[in-house]
Amino acid sequence: MDTSEREEGTQLRLEFDKLGKIGARGQRVVPVVLQHAETGEVLFVGYANREALAETLRRREAVLWSTSRDELWHKGATSGDRLDVVDVRVNCEQNSLLYRVVPRTGGACHTKDADGRARKTCYYRRLTNAEELEFV
Amino acid sequence: MDTSEREEGTQLRLEFDKLGKIGARGQRVVPVVLQHAETGEVLFVGYANREALAETLRRREAVLWSTSRDELWHKGATSGDRLDVVDVRVNCEQNSLLYRVVPRTGGACHTKDADGRARKTCYYRRLTNAEELEFV
Repeated sequence: MDTSEREEGTQLRLEFDKLGKIGARGQRVVPVVLQHAETGEVLFVGYANREALAETLRRREAVLWSTSRDELWHKGATSGDRLDVVDVRVNCEQNSLLYRVVPRTGGACHTKDADGRARKTCYYRRLTNAEELEFV
Repeated sequence: MDTSEREEGTQLRLEFDKLGKIGARGQRVVPVVLQHAETGEVLFVGYANREALAETLRRREAVLWSTSRDELWHKGATSGDRLDVVDVRVNCEQNSLLYRVVPRTGGACHTKDADGRARKTCYYRRLTNAEELEFV
């Protein structure tokens, strides 16, 4: 399945390899939930190591660790879709983070809607069953 | 740091080993964000494999894969804090899920607040800097 089918299609094709790759590469990261601080919408899940978290707190903009490129990822540095950080929260067991953010342009996803604008969230499809998706 | 300090303390002690362990054990899971469908609050992050997702869709209650116990985890089966599922969404790259839920009792976290009730969310502390936490 190519990227377009995975991102714009209506078939569920979950990618179960990502966390295994993170482990195999020895990347010491925690999952980060990015949430719109005003609407409550969940935007996407990223990953952060100590450096990404430190940069997030310093800049007050969402910074993550790109597990695929194995480098610091300052969200929106290229696209302009920066995410201003309201606060950062940690869960009970301290093995995940929640970045509460306000998207500067409104866009948060790297995919585009029918009008060519960055989607507001990466969760734009719901499961109708264990195989099929529909756009929200 | 013991569990109580990690869960009830005000020092940031992120646990960066979890994803590495998931990889080392060969667990084929994706992260799942659990969100309160009515308030928008992010409750916690769990993990799901195909079986957990299938059980979630069948029961219409949140079912996850316990990566520590390496077994199916029907949230609330013991505590009573079950999470009724409104819908399940998938992200652009199909490497994470979003369970939109309504907590049956109001509680979602395994930790307890000062009144002895299960906390409504696991994200009850915010970072004041890269080392310290405060309760929200």
